Amino acid sequence: MPLFGALEAGGTKMVCAVGNEKGEILERVSIPTRDPAGTMPELLDFFRDKGLAAVGIGCFGPVDLTPQSPTYGYITSTPKLSWRNYPIVRRFREELGVPVGFDTDVNAAALGEAVWGCTRDVENSIYITVGTGVGVGVILGGRPYHGMLHPEGGHIFVERRADDPMPRGICPYHGNCLEGLASGPAIEQRWGRKGIELSDIPAVWELEAYYIGQAICTYICTLSPERVIVGGGVMHQEQMLPLIRQEVRRQMHGYIQTKQMEKLDEYIVPVSLNDNQGVMGAVQLAIDAYLAEGGTL
Amino acid sequence: MPLFGALEAGGTKMVCAVGNEKGEILERVSIPTRDPAGTMPELLDFFRDKGLAAVGIGCFGPVDLTPQSPTYGYITSTPKLSWRNYPIVRRFREELGVPVGFDTDVNAAALGEAVWGCTRDVENSIYITVGTGVGVGVILGGRPYHGMLHPEGGHIFVERRADDPMPRGICPYHGNCLEGLASGPAIEQRWGRKGIELSDIPAVWELEAYYIGQAICTYICTLSPERVIVGGGVMHQEQMLPLIRQEVRRQMHGYIQTKQMEKLDEYIVPVSLNDNQGVMGAVQLAIDAYLAEGGTL
Repeated sequence: MPLFGALEAGGTKMVCAVGNEKGEILERVSIPTRDPAGTMPELLDFFRDKGLAAVGIGCFGPVDLTPQSPTYGYITSTPKLSWRNYPIVRRFREELGVPVGFDTDVNAAALGEAVWGCTRDVENSIYITVGTGVGVGVILGGRPYHGMLHPEGGHIFVERRADDPMPRGICPYHGNCLEGLASGPAIEQRWGRKGIELSDIPAVWELEAYYIGQAICTYICTLSPERVIVGGGVMHQEQMLPLIRQEVRRQMHGYIQTKQMEKLDEYIVPVSLNDNQGVMGAVQLAIDAYLAEGGTL
Repeated sequence: MPLFGALEAGGTKMVCAVGNEKGEILERVSIPTRDPAGTMPELLDFFRDKGLAAVGIGCFGPVDLTPQSPTYGYITSTPKLSWRNYPIVRRFREELGVPVGFDTDVNAAALGEAVWGCTRDVENSIYITVGTGVGVGVILGGRPYHGMLHPEGGHIFVERRADDPMPRGICPYHGNCLEGLASGPAIEQRWGRKGIELSDIPAVWELEAYYIGQAICTYICTLSPERVIVGGGVMHQEQMLPLIRQEVRRQMHGYIQTKQMEKLDEYIVPVSLNDNQGVMGAVQLAIDAYLAEGGTL
């Protein structure tokens, strides 16, 4: 059985793994993200000499996913300056000599869940992660969706609640976008402490659910997913998911009537792959790249 | 050459047409929308005995587009009570005995533009109409997109501008959604006169462009379209399109960097089919239904 490399490339850590076509993760290490000169050799050393058939990368972004583009496979306008305009796909391809699959980190996680996890029974789903940033992976017709660039669902505008003690969201681009009002750093800025120290203050999580619920209503009105996964550090607060479902029901106000909306417990769900959804999705990206270049399973 | 019937079913008028596989409209009439008992016989009389190979319907909604559903082809939770739970597709099928294609009015219009109009060179596009209501048709991978239900992009939440003289949007479901703040009736409610009488008051259109521009930013961050068409009654104000482009650029604040975003004149565009985009899209729905049931061109 061929082996596939998987890289979940994040702004703070790089998770490297080896998996197979069943999505089994056979090996997994985590490396802190520094600059390309320091980090790339470590990553390549992990994947080298393992007899991999292909590698898949789910990468922080924005990234260039347009195959015809001269900068395909580059990390583009990231605020992490040392990675800006970095040709990560080409480096892997040249160093390892195998096909390289590539997508955003959130699309990879959404794909992992769609192939092996809690959205494998639907064609169209989204994966929202709320943590240091807010990201949204989108699976349409069973495949990661890109369009003009790729969805950047963390940056949709949301209406600030009038009683929010923070006068304006912290996104340097958009102020009151979802990331600006609901990310982990926004929680810390608003309440003066990290979320993990605020678990027992209901007002913190009610406001947080208000924003995430509002955003999910907007995703339902645009992307019309058949299921919504919510993950990320903020969702480690176990009170969140019921509050979010309640806000979605309240704010949607009965406008969208489907069988899914009648059962929000089954419609808005937590991640199912034990934080391996990202690397498992990257394994699938590797499999796809392998098959696209004539490999067989 | 086979002939195809096309119905653009709207809340105030029904546009009936006959077209061919080139998208040429050979005949076209408009009938006021009353209740089904009054209107349906008129519609069926128009289409009967014309030797049509199939009929396509682009319909006001919400509608049920799920082929496996027992209420497929029904108009569902519309506020137009006499049409609620009306099986429009089945009636056409039974009365005319030909294949019937079916989608939302806005998806049909988006499809018309995608097949014969200004989005025929891209795979992923959206069509926004701002008038009595606000609707968004979505074409992904060249086909009308549905997902769980179908996009209802007029009902995304937007942030009310602090200096908006209207304290709250007028949508009975959502208050400050795009339709609640930017539809024709919202303009009339805010300024005390119909939009058509306000053409020479810049503040009216600057605020309107603020909301539409904000919504387009949200569509870009979710649906990532390769082109955005804006139509509907409000867009008859010729000052609107440049103002909308300006707001998209200002509010997106350089976050999404693509070649399309550098040329907003080519990215955010008016309708191109002279208000026939709806019936031309319905012709394409008819063609698709005809081919799906074994017809040949």
